[in-house]
Amino acid sequence: MPQRHGLGNQEVLGNQTEIDQSNPTMNWNNLYAKRTRWMTRSAIREVLKVTAQREIISFAGGLPAADLFPLDRVSEAATRVLKTIGPSALQYSQTEGIGGLRDWIAGKFNVQRENVLITSGSQQALDLIGRVILDEGDRAIVESPTYLALLSAWRPLGVEFIPAPADADGMQVDQLEALLQPQRPKCIYLTPNFQNPQGTTLTQERRIALLEFARKHSIAIVEDNPYSELRYRGASLPHLIDLDADAQATNDGVVIHVGTFSKVLMPGLRIGWVVAASPLIDKLVLAKQAADLHTSTFNQHVALELATNGCMDELIPRLRQAYRERLEAMLAALEAHFPRGASWMRPDGGIFLLATLPKSVNTTELLPPALEQNVAFVPGEEFHLNGEGRNTLRLNFSNPTPGKINAGIERLAEVVKRACSA
Amino acid sequence: MPQRHGLGNQEVLGNQTEIDQSNPTMNWNNLYAKRTRWMTRSAIREVLKVTAQREIISFAGGLPAADLFPLDRVSEAATRVLKTIGPSALQYSQTEGIGGLRDWIAGKFNVQRENVLITSGSQQALDLIGRVILDEGDRAIVESPTYLALLSAWRPLGVEFIPAPADADGMQVDQLEALLQPQRPKCIYLTPNFQNPQGTTLTQERRIALLEFARKHSIAIVEDNPYSELRYRGASLPHLIDLDADAQATNDGVVIHVGTFSKVLMPGLRIGWVVAASPLIDKLVLAKQAADLHTSTFNQHVALELATNGCMDELIPRLRQAYRERLEAMLAALEAHFPRGASWMRPDGGIFLLATLPKSVNTTELLPPALEQNVAFVPGEEFHLNGEGRNTLRLNFSNPTPGKINAGIERLAEVVKRACSA
Repeated sequence: MPQRHGLGNQEVLGNQTEIDQSNPTMNWNNLYAKRTRWMTRSAIREVLKVTAQREIISFAGGLPAADLFPLDRVSEAATRVLKTIGPSALQYSQTEGIGGLRDWIAGKFNVQRENVLITSGSQQALDLIGRVILDEGDRAIVESPTYLALLSAWRPLGVEFIPAPADADGMQVDQLEALLQPQRPKCIYLTPNFQNPQGTTLTQERRIALLEFARKHSIAIVEDNPYSELRYRGASLPHLIDLDADAQATNDGVVIHVGTFSKVLMPGLRIGWVVAASPLIDKLVLAKQAADLHTSTFNQHVALELATNGCMDELIPRLRQAYRERLEAMLAALEAHFPRGASWMRPDGGIFLLATLPKSVNTTELLPPALEQNVAFVPGEEFHLNGEGRNTLRLNFSNPTPGKINAGIERLAEVVKRACSA
Repeated sequence: MPQRHGLGNQEVLGNQTEIDQSNPTMNWNNLYAKRTRWMTRSAIREVLKVTAQREIISFAGGLPAADLFPLDRVSEAATRVLKTIGPSALQYSQTEGIGGLRDWIAGKFNVQRENVLITSGSQQALDLIGRVILDEGDRAIVESPTYLALLSAWRPLGVEFIPAPADADGMQVDQLEALLQPQRPKCIYLTPNFQNPQGTTLTQERRIALLEFARKHSIAIVEDNPYSELRYRGASLPHLIDLDADAQATNDGVVIHVGTFSKVLMPGLRIGWVVAASPLIDKLVLAKQAADLHTSTFNQHVALELATNGCMDELIPRLRQAYRERLEAMLAALEAHFPRGASWMRPDGGIFLLATLPKSVNTTELLPPALEQNVAFVPGEEFHLNGEGRNTLRLNFSNPTPGKINAGIERLAEVVKRACSA
């Protein structure tokens, strides 16, 4: 008989099987692991589904401006990789990542190749770090509010999150001492630059104090850094891992640095990385090998090509210019349209800002009328721990154009005003 | 000051920081989670590192023949995706996978889009399934020997593996009843077609019996199916999920089917999938969202293009032809060179076979002299549970050419003969 092509074989024997149909039911609810109960659907995801369905001005996602993606350069890079690297660009490769890309990242952070692991986006980096260091009941300090997907990644591990207060200058490091009891936290997770969702940046003084605190108490710092290249004003501040450089050189560093190409190239490639002490990298490699063997060989080569052939160096200033304009458009629109009693962050970079409405307003209840007006945002409550932030909303300004930002904020302001006067 | 391009900021403030260097040490060994102790480095990985270092004939990996990758077609597909799909091919996308690819896979298995999740290779599918259904102490039936990376993925969950005996016809289903005590296993993992490492195929009778057993006891079956398209003789058998079709249609099926493009297109794209009851898919989506947000949008589009534009339909027969020749070359070389007392499987397809030497030979001890003769294999012991298989070796025949296969088996036979006569 001729062999079929395609991946299903369902026609091969037709119905000539003799399956006893008397016990056909499987109740999947009885089968799930305990951790699965701690896996939750994110509000953002649900909002994004709605926004994908119709013409809407969305401040909800964290999407880069796709119209700025240099498609021709990506196309050229893909062709060039296949021509110069050949078949091995499509073959299995090392779990750690391809040597060239690890070396390029190592060079950026003045570390060795052994200190770098390539991951399938920075989300995987966060997941692997959690898996390697966090047991059920372990405590992790996070900013409140913090990055939602970090909570999603670590919650199924049974981690206890300890919210650290954060103001316009980022995590309030002088209040961390009080969080050491009853049990020393294993790590501190934060986004020092242009935090998601607040838009805040940790000051130089706090960076130094944080590192000293972490060293003193042997607590790991997970430094999540998706946005540092997207600075629109002010001078860059050193990464925590840069301040930790001497200790990193002898693998005694406390900082685990997480980065990504998603905001400086394209998220659809799913290339992120971890820079850390090599003993920890070794453990992360074991976890990653079990998780997905390795990150796409092809995409790693394409990303390296784009990072080294000048494409990324041309793209970043264009992104900065465009996003700066969009941020300014949003700040101007908020100023023009939002009612008294509302306030908002004025971030130095990144792609988000958090707005705060009068205490009486619940932004989760604001969402349905906003969607009715064809404008979307993410309620701030979910980013917070301990039920704070019910009157906040996260606004993304990287994806919509300045014109849409103005129109969208105007629409949103009408909904906000109605809620404020209700 | 001018903003720097590139991703490190270490020069910004130079050494003008005031870090107290008195507490610089971090002992990472004190920080790891319990599960990290259960993460182990695989022997295959170590062997592959050696084989990558020098000219060696390797039967060790599970690599497809990279010289058969249609590079020009991939290059064309990448260009076409960027032209026709545009920027969204490089943007964030849904955790479930892109609609077109999910529909294509759903069509192959006569299920709905809701029954399909796209994963970052089939390894991620196995990892996610474990995370969603297996608690510490849960029991999972596996063939002995079984796929090594399944053990790596599930061992950190604290799973107890129950080895089921397997012969030349695959898992001995009539002996499963005895494995139900002291506690019902949650799932049965197996590779029905051309198993790794044995090369065996589960018979039709056993497929039906296995499904009835699983239904009767409400045990999930994880059907790992990387190789079914690589059949070189005999008629295809129905997948377990095909036999489970009626129950799958009402989401009462017990079979979780795992597939991949790695063996029929290219592993470097890292595209796999799960086909299962939609309630389970929903949970796997939550786990995947936390694990890596989604699989590369770009690679999903490229794979869909290659799967639907005729490229894969042309490639699969070429792979079958080439691998059939390589399998025949290996069987002929084993016959010609291996000593009496050695035996080996004669698989109907796939990319591996297991050879068995006299009981007195320990194949782990055989590896160093083999590498000295520039030939590599993987000792079979690690695939087995309960310390069996010390006299077995796994041989891959998809990667080396027929000429190299003959030369390599001849070299290996010399090493084997010396060990047998020692």
